[in-house]
Amino acid sequence: MTDETLYYEDFEEGRTFESPERTVSAEEIVAFASEFDPQPMHLDEAAGKASILGGLSGSGWHMSSIAMRLFYDAVISRSAGEGGPGIDVMEWRKPLIAGDTVRLSIRVKARRALASRPGIGLVTMEHTMMNQKGERIMRMEAPVIMRMRDRLPVEAGQ
Amino acid sequence: MTDETLYYEDFEEGRTFESPERTVSAEEIVAFASEFDPQPMHLDEAAGKASILGGLSGSGWHMSSIAMRLFYDAVISRSAGEGGPGIDVMEWRKPLIAGDTVRLSIRVKARRALASRPGIGLVTMEHTMMNQKGERIMRMEAPVIMRMRDRLPVEAGQ
Repeated sequence: MTDETLYYEDFEEGRTFESPERTVSAEEIVAFASEFDPQPMHLDEAAGKASILGGLSGSGWHMSSIAMRLFYDAVISRSAGEGGPGIDVMEWRKPLIAGDTVRLSIRVKARRALASRPGIGLVTMEHTMMNQKGERIMRMEAPVIMRMRDRLPVEAGQ
Repeated sequence: MTDETLYYEDFEEGRTFESPERTVSAEEIVAFASEFDPQPMHLDEAAGKASILGGLSGSGWHMSSIAMRLFYDAVISRSAGEGGPGIDVMEWRKPLIAGDTVRLSIRVKARRALASRPGIGLVTMEHTMMNQKGERIMRMEAPVIMRMRDRLPVEAGQ
């Protein structure tokens, strides 16, 4: 098989994907925060240590954006995905500390064909981000629009 | 008054805040996408025009991160906020197209004191991002941890 593209049909409920690892530096944390979330605990080591986060820690939005990249590398880059309409759940459970190495585990939670758009379905995936200690630092559930390999017949009446 | 810091008590239900405007360039869109969400419609004008988004369009995560910055500028920078535990709702309703000028409207949706942490409350705000045409391109609901100016008594039994 040369065509390894993942289509709607390939996202069976319960199927899981594992991302590569990524180490997040203090420089990256400060650069992201300077532009998007310049709260002291995301900019300065001493302020981070003085906060409840316990160290220079990435913005939740940085954590989420890194999760998007890991999801892209593991799944979206080789899929018939057409973007997502939003997020159902996002939990920032523990801080992302400078120097942490994180990875993402992705599980298909549910899927459904869109009656209004033949050949298109919505796949909802649960994302869990782990750090190098095995702690679950982030959890998210979000749908992705996915094209079908074979068009499914639309049920009568829909 | 020199102390204009916003505390938990200042976030009455229904109170609104308006952010400054921000124009988002093609260069910013491509830079963010290159690092976090390198799907073709976020990297290339022609690919964006060919997609359902209709032009070079920012990643949803870029839109969300810009919303965080506008929220910081309007509220968080002058508040007793201590970060947020996650997101309750995020809807990317319309694309953010290169050259768009956006602003954020923030409304206090609900608040509650945390019985487990005297002096601390959770304020849930609804965020709506508008573009220069007045279209609502993003909607979010998310809680923020906020310190109280005056400690409230914790109810008995909690």
